[in-house]
Amino acid sequence: MNKGGLTDFSRLCIHTITTKPWNIEEAAENYSKAGVKGISVWREILEGRDVIKTGELLRGNSLEVVSLVRGGFFPSISSGKRTKAIEDNRNAIEEAAFLGCPMLVLVCGADPAQSLEISISQIKEGIGVLLPYADEYNIKLAIEPLHPMYADTRSAISTLSQANDLAEYFNSPLVGVVVDVYHLWWDPDIERQIARCGANGNLFAFHICDWLSPTKDMLNDRGLMGEGCIPVRKIREWVEKAGFTGFHEVEIFSIKHWSEDQYQFLENIKNTYLENS
Amino acid sequence: MNKGGLTDFSRLCIHTITTKPWNIEEAAENYSKAGVKGISVWREILEGRDVIKTGELLRGNSLEVVSLVRGGFFPSISSGKRTKAIEDNRNAIEEAAFLGCPMLVLVCGADPAQSLEISISQIKEGIGVLLPYADEYNIKLAIEPLHPMYADTRSAISTLSQANDLAEYFNSPLVGVVVDVYHLWWDPDIERQIARCGANGNLFAFHICDWLSPTKDMLNDRGLMGEGCIPVRKIREWVEKAGFTGFHEVEIFSIKHWSEDQYQFLENIKNTYLENS
Repeated sequence: MNKGGLTDFSRLCIHTITTKPWNIEEAAENYSKAGVKGISVWREILEGRDVIKTGELLRGNSLEVVSLVRGGFFPSISSGKRTKAIEDNRNAIEEAAFLGCPMLVLVCGADPAQSLEISISQIKEGIGVLLPYADEYNIKLAIEPLHPMYADTRSAISTLSQANDLAEYFNSPLVGVVVDVYHLWWDPDIERQIARCGANGNLFAFHICDWLSPTKDMLNDRGLMGEGCIPVRKIREWVEKAGFTGFHEVEIFSIKHWSEDQYQFLENIKNTYLENS
Repeated sequence: MNKGGLTDFSRLCIHTITTKPWNIEEAAENYSKAGVKGISVWREILEGRDVIKTGELLRGNSLEVVSLVRGGFFPSISSGKRTKAIEDNRNAIEEAAFLGCPMLVLVCGADPAQSLEISISQIKEGIGVLLPYADEYNIKLAIEPLHPMYADTRSAISTLSQANDLAEYFNSPLVGVVVDVYHLWWDPDIERQIARCGANGNLFAFHICDWLSPTKDMLNDRGLMGEGCIPVRKIREWVEKAGFTGFHEVEIFSIKHWSEDQYQFLENIKNTYLENS
């Protein structure tokens, strides 16, 4: 019936942004009741909150805190903004530590006013400056390559190959990569690059959703697994073949799904996770 | 003032879709009066017209017909649709010949209902079936890799590396590739892949425009050269270093620019072409 499919929710994690209408108490309680085992926390949802107590709340609901999302955005033509970005990333590392979360996801950034090469060199510099702080708090930094349609402002790192290069450059147990099916599914090199980060111990996280056809919005029109054209299960198999044993993190930005009843949406996440991941 | 810049319009070509509000008589007359030397013809604009006479009209306006846009769209889960696509491509080759145009641009297609691998194998099969017809009419087939955001339906060929692989597979003087800055600017491998197709005699065409930041529409929000973040001049230099001596084809789909006065838009194309290409 469900050949090669998943049979339980022991590795299912949800990003809080996926159920954006819920505050973190609602997310924690509802994920937990639904049998979801992991939660990845978007920083926005922590605003104005006691981060340590929030971590306790999540663990009190039997949720493992998988990652804090997101740091990064290192590049800028303005040196002042680059300095501010470093400060913000230091805060993010502290937040992760207070939350009891082992990993910070880096959306590395880009500035359309300068070349991709310069943006990439600023990303490299930024991670280098950040690494001692990450080490101090023992927080992993996970470089997430983003879809090339975000190369102007969100990430000069567009391929897993580039993210692998960067992670290998630092050669640290605290620097690795995120494989997100949405960003990478089109890449003819993806299987090989997944094997590469796996072999190097750099495969830190795995994000799932789907690419809708047609996609109506460049940011907020992602689909549930199976709603689109990404071979999510095949990519999961590659990721596991590469030695990954971590959570499968559902990260869906969707104006459509956010407008639905979130309890039903959560059920749909669970069903499509088993059927299509 | 304009270091490394272009100084005349001897290699400027415009795609008819760029000035969509104009019919082909208007495009021909206005491009010609503006000193533009080449025209690439979108098939839609030929509908219901005598193609041979249209070719004469273009040449009568001192325009070189650079390419016919577009064939392709080979993949489908339906074998009937694949057969129809081949028929349509044969028609396109005939149209190119009647128009007196040496090249057909291929937007290769993809079907979200099947894997990219299957779509690519159907593209390969389609070009193979088409090649004897292209040979009969002496029409070049130019494979255009499209931006990965179009991998679901428009092109399973997302990188210049993939297009180069495909062109080299056919090893024919009639099969080559298109370098379009819009589709490829983000690719860390672009300079090397441009050198590769140049060295193999497979660099058939060069398309320019710009990537707006932010981009508001995935299809129809391209910018004039210099309006966005693509290093158009740098890429042109790579293309010329690779031995390319053909036209620089301006291909801009833009709801915004189409709504402007097209005479002023044409002047803006000329100015930004010199300033930023």
